[in-house]
Amino acid sequence: MTGAGAGAAAGVRAAPGSAGLGLGAAGSGSAGVGAGSPGSDPAGTTPVGRLLGAIADVGRAPSGGYERFAWTAHDLTLREWFAAEAAARGLDLVLDRAGNQWAWWGDPDADGPGVVTGSHLDSVPGGGAFDGPLGVASAFAALDALRAAGVRPERPLGIVNFSDEEGARFGLACLGSRAVTGTVGADTLLALRDGAGDSLADVLGREVPAGGAGGARGAGGASRGVLLEHYGRDDEALARVGVFVELHVEQGRYLADLPADQEAPVAVGAAIWPHGRWRVDLAGEANHAGTTPLAHRHDPMLDLARLITDVRAAAEHAGALATLAKVEVEPNGVNAIPSRVRAWIDARAETEDAVHQVLTMPASGPTADFVAPAPSAEFAADRGPLTATNSALGGAGLARWGAVRESWTPATVFDPVLAGQLAEVVGRPGSDLPAPVIGTGAGHDAGIFAAAGFPTAMLFVRNPTGISHSPAEFAEAADCDAGVRALTAVLADLLTAPPHPSSIHFEA
Amino acid sequence: MTGAGAGAAAGVRAAPGSAGLGLGAAGSGSAGVGAGSPGSDPAGTTPVGRLLGAIADVGRAPSGGYERFAWTAHDLTLREWFAAEAAARGLDLVLDRAGNQWAWWGDPDADGPGVVTGSHLDSVPGGGAFDGPLGVASAFAALDALRAAGVRPERPLGIVNFSDEEGARFGLACLGSRAVTGTVGADTLLALRDGAGDSLADVLGREVPAGGAGGARGAGGASRGVLLEHYGRDDEALARVGVFVELHVEQGRYLADLPADQEAPVAVGAAIWPHGRWRVDLAGEANHAGTTPLAHRHDPMLDLARLITDVRAAAEHAGALATLAKVEVEPNGVNAIPSRVRAWIDARAETEDAVHQVLTMPASGPTADFVAPAPSAEFAADRGPLTATNSALGGAGLARWGAVRESWTPATVFDPVLAGQLAEVVGRPGSDLPAPVIGTGAGHDAGIFAAAGFPTAMLFVRNPTGISHSPAEFAEAADCDAGVRALTAVLADLLTAPPHPSSIHFEA
Repeated sequence: MTGAGAGAAAGVRAAPGSAGLGLGAAGSGSAGVGAGSPGSDPAGTTPVGRLLGAIADVGRAPSGGYERFAWTAHDLTLREWFAAEAAARGLDLVLDRAGNQWAWWGDPDADGPGVVTGSHLDSVPGGGAFDGPLGVASAFAALDALRAAGVRPERPLGIVNFSDEEGARFGLACLGSRAVTGTVGADTLLALRDGAGDSLADVLGREVPAGGAGGARGAGGASRGVLLEHYGRDDEALARVGVFVELHVEQGRYLADLPADQEAPVAVGAAIWPHGRWRVDLAGEANHAGTTPLAHRHDPMLDLARLITDVRAAAEHAGALATLAKVEVEPNGVNAIPSRVRAWIDARAETEDAVHQVLTMPASGPTADFVAPAPSAEFAADRGPLTATNSALGGAGLARWGAVRESWTPATVFDPVLAGQLAEVVGRPGSDLPAPVIGTGAGHDAGIFAAAGFPTAMLFVRNPTGISHSPAEFAEAADCDAGVRALTAVLADLLTAPPHPSSIHFEA
Repeated sequence: MTGAGAGAAAGVRAAPGSAGLGLGAAGSGSAGVGAGSPGSDPAGTTPVGRLLGAIADVGRAPSGGYERFAWTAHDLTLREWFAAEAAARGLDLVLDRAGNQWAWWGDPDADGPGVVTGSHLDSVPGGGAFDGPLGVASAFAALDALRAAGVRPERPLGIVNFSDEEGARFGLACLGSRAVTGTVGADTLLALRDGAGDSLADVLGREVPAGGAGGARGAGGASRGVLLEHYGRDDEALARVGVFVELHVEQGRYLADLPADQEAPVAVGAAIWPHGRWRVDLAGEANHAGTTPLAHRHDPMLDLARLITDVRAAAEHAGALATLAKVEVEPNGVNAIPSRVRAWIDARAETEDAVHQVLTMPASGPTADFVAPAPSAEFAADRGPLTATNSALGGAGLARWGAVRESWTPATVFDPVLAGQLAEVVGRPGSDLPAPVIGTGAGHDAGIFAAAGFPTAMLFVRNPTGISHSPAEFAEAADCDAGVRALTAVLADLLTAPPHPSSIHFEA
């Protein structure tokens, strides 16, 4: 349903000043949220800074980066924080069949579907304080602002915390949103294994409290209560969603690099680039590094060097982003020629054609020793819809490396009418210009919902360096506050105007 | 004292047939020890095969490779096996201050110094069944053969199991023999940390049985009983060693590639190549792989590719062995540009000059982004004696990568008189030729003892493929048996002839 609803734009445009929540000019030079202490607002200058400050120490490694992986103790602590924030506001906490948390103001089953906002609380390894938590904290702050302003919503407002958005634990990004929408089947998801060899089913089963056969779904107790036999698509939860707006820190420098006369602390999302992940197995022959002549070696590390170089060259040539950032070496001993090196390739671009070029352009290719291994059954099953990009992997370019696709997400275009309306609601400080509408290479739960046919939008908060997935991820406190004000204005508009026309097309 | 004793060769030459243990012709085409089941002799055709078979399942991973790391549960099981084999033969088990196990036939304190043979029971990650255990099992089998033949030793015979020879756990090879000889100080060794962050002191402390303040050194109870306050050089243990002979599977194809008219299942060791390990830190800037333009990246994986290529090219140019086989990527996430890549280089050659060439020859060098990091305090301390090879690391070749030396072992030449005598005792089947005398690039505890001034020799058993440090490591059952007969003949010679002249120079 992406792109549907064009020409029926009246519903979401906010009457100027209707809730007294227009977006003011962003301050500048203020203390950043996260300065020194990632995710905290030491001075407590803004509501969202105080919310982030409460979880700033959860899952923070000595390196300063966050290690908040799905269903670990750190994640459970964050889920408890979410439940407590919901309870403090009198919201109804509902756990869906996929373990995502929803906090409702109003009754979406009686008066729905509602307006949903939120994001996720998990992190990549060594992640920053904003990717995910900023969207959840801003949601609570916006709800508080709506109430303080006396807004009387005509439909329910939901705040969501999606499980395992980063895919850091089970290797599949947006796991929770894929599960609840049925984008990927429950059996496939429950069989995914983490680095310790535990399946999602093992992990969810382990989290069930002692004495309970499966916990109480919907009882609201933090992480617990996911019934394995009901895991997966949740039509009741989906029926409550009329429109979804996800606020997120920008992960590039579009906003930071705008000229002064077009300055904007917040942008609206236009689209998510097509994105795939591939795995390459480089076979070698284990042997003693101190006794095996060079000529007798089958050293897969030499192939890794060529693959790294090939991937970068292909990305430059195609005008795409391609990255080889994860490597597993077996046995990874200083004096043992590896028996195998496994490498993962992440490739994205504005168009599917450009991603296709990355994978098919001529490359230096493997050494003469290289034998492309047969894909293991474990990974042979495709995890997403097939496209030309995958079927083309037959023998040219990176395909010579025997790359196996692990995931594929086509381009996601957010509802353009909704995006245009939100851009006007958000605006720019000291200007009549609408907020910028920008695309992104990063995947989000909002992309999963958009692809599943829900009216969906995103807001991006300015990031001065563009750095993300790093302890250096950052946003100024004033920009985070501007993000909350933008979200508040958008929610006020969506909660009080007639339903967004797309939402009536929703079919679970 | 390496090389001492030349010209005083009488003592160790065995009178032909003196113990009825001359080395017969090796069988061929027989079932291999380890065929199908690494380390076992399914047909039980030889004593050494039966000994190896008893531990064939200990620490064997599903991949078929062994994971027998120092002081782990698998290692403790192997140490218990060693103690039980010693007890079954009425030997006295002694644990030295470094946790190495010694089993004595006779009293080395009253009638020593003695003749010592043995090796180690730990493995590299994914290791084979022979590297280490073959030397220990052959020692027990040879002792049995000596007794069965009625040999009456004039001095004690010791069988040793050295701790942590591979260095797989704490990063320093020959840890146990370096400790007992005082080659590296106790404080340095106890502070070494394993991959989990535990120091050797932590691990040894943990192994002490509950209720004991430090266990009973010398009480013989498998792994337990290492007193931290006494850890390190053990003069009493060293005073018991008159000569040390280590039998080991060959880790190259010298014997396998001999022409038929020079065939030999067993060789005598001449020397161990000089050997060093270096670490390189490649600094990067963590960022999101889906949103960071290529031109804005500082991706250390690109430097890793160049480093791998540089190391191989330098090795080829220098006629040396150099290997980059261990890599750590942080954070190692599919969609996170790494903040750091760490790589280790292992370099060896027949001469120190050749190793020096590997490290100093011109290389392509790092990318323009590369900044050589300051060595961390953790690694800045040298762990071995300084040589020209290290001090030359100033700015050329691989030094441009900021390589930090982690270990250095100069060339070790085994006592050439002893080697020559053993080559005659061992001989070749169906020939009057002495056994071959060969060098090796692999480090061994025998090298540590030789460098510490002990008369030391090695025997190598033929390996048909030359593969080692791999589940494919292999030796024919008949060759293993030939190794036992060679060791038996050597021990009979050393136990009954006058002491080796070098041994009287021993000063602890």
